Amino acid sequence: MTRTALAFVAVTFALGAHVALAADAAQLEINKKNVVEFYDKAINQKDFEAASKYMGARYTQHNPNAADGPEGLKAFLQFLKEKFPASRSEIKRVFADGDYVILHVHAVREPGTRGSAIVDIFKLENGKVVEHWDVVQPIPEKAVNTNGMF
Amino acid sequence: MTRTALAFVAVTFALGAHVALAADAAQLEINKKNVVEFYDKAINQKDFEAASKYMGARYTQHNPNAADGPEGLKAFLQFLKEKFPASRSEIKRVFADGDYVILHVHAVREPGTRGSAIVDIFKLENGKVVEHWDVVQPIPEKAVNTNGMF
Repeated sequence: MTRTALAFVAVTFALGAHVALAADAAQLEINKKNVVEFYDKAINQKDFEAASKYMGARYTQHNPNAADGPEGLKAFLQFLKEKFPASRSEIKRVFADGDYVILHVHAVREPGTRGSAIVDIFKLENGKVVEHWDVVQPIPEKAVNTNGMF
Repeated sequence: MTRTALAFVAVTFALGAHVALAADAAQLEINKKNVVEFYDKAINQKDFEAASKYMGARYTQHNPNAADGPEGLKAFLQFLKEKFPASRSEIKRVFADGDYVILHVHAVREPGTRGSAIVDIFKLENGKVVEHWDVVQPIPEKAVNTNGMF
């Protein structure tokens, strides 16, 4: 093999490995964008139809207060719309790793109240949301430190 | 420039970009390993000295019930040791993104109780833990779905 041919093989190998890692990084950004848009359509706009475009065939729900499946989310958004129409959730941080996107959120159901700190974990398949876990903690009136929960 | 020289330049460029992405991926794994070890030494072993090897110069605390700084963590571990010596926290999921590591945890303070779902977020600088946020929710007795909180 000539030096040029050897160099060509090396380029091909290095580029192949690079393209795979770069594709992974690009997919993480796509997943983040999809989840942020899904979250806003669902939780802030309370628009199930708009949110459902980001969802896969299943929506496995781990929040103990919400019914399973896409129908469970639909019912939850209807509840928000009726009981807390002015509720707002502000995304403070977005993380992605593999098939998962994690949101750190400040949720306020009634304007002027302290609200809750929430972490939502979403699993995606082919860029679509298929599973959800969360942990919710009301922000206490007093704290031992001055750093805030975010 | 000869074709060989051009190919050499291309190899160098592709390898450089690849090495940078691969180094990022390797650092994420190192960060995960460091945080999992830190968490076990601190929260399960309640050994501040062992845990402090994974900590940077600051430990900015956002948990509203814990005092700021490394001394705050030391006091919290002393509290756990005295009040809940049998407490155990099981890490269910570990995520990493940039300088952050996120843990999804099932914490049980007294054996036989349902315990809490927790998400901990740690920020690292140079592979050392320097900041902590968390959200804590007691696992309810009853849930609307059968999927569990994990």
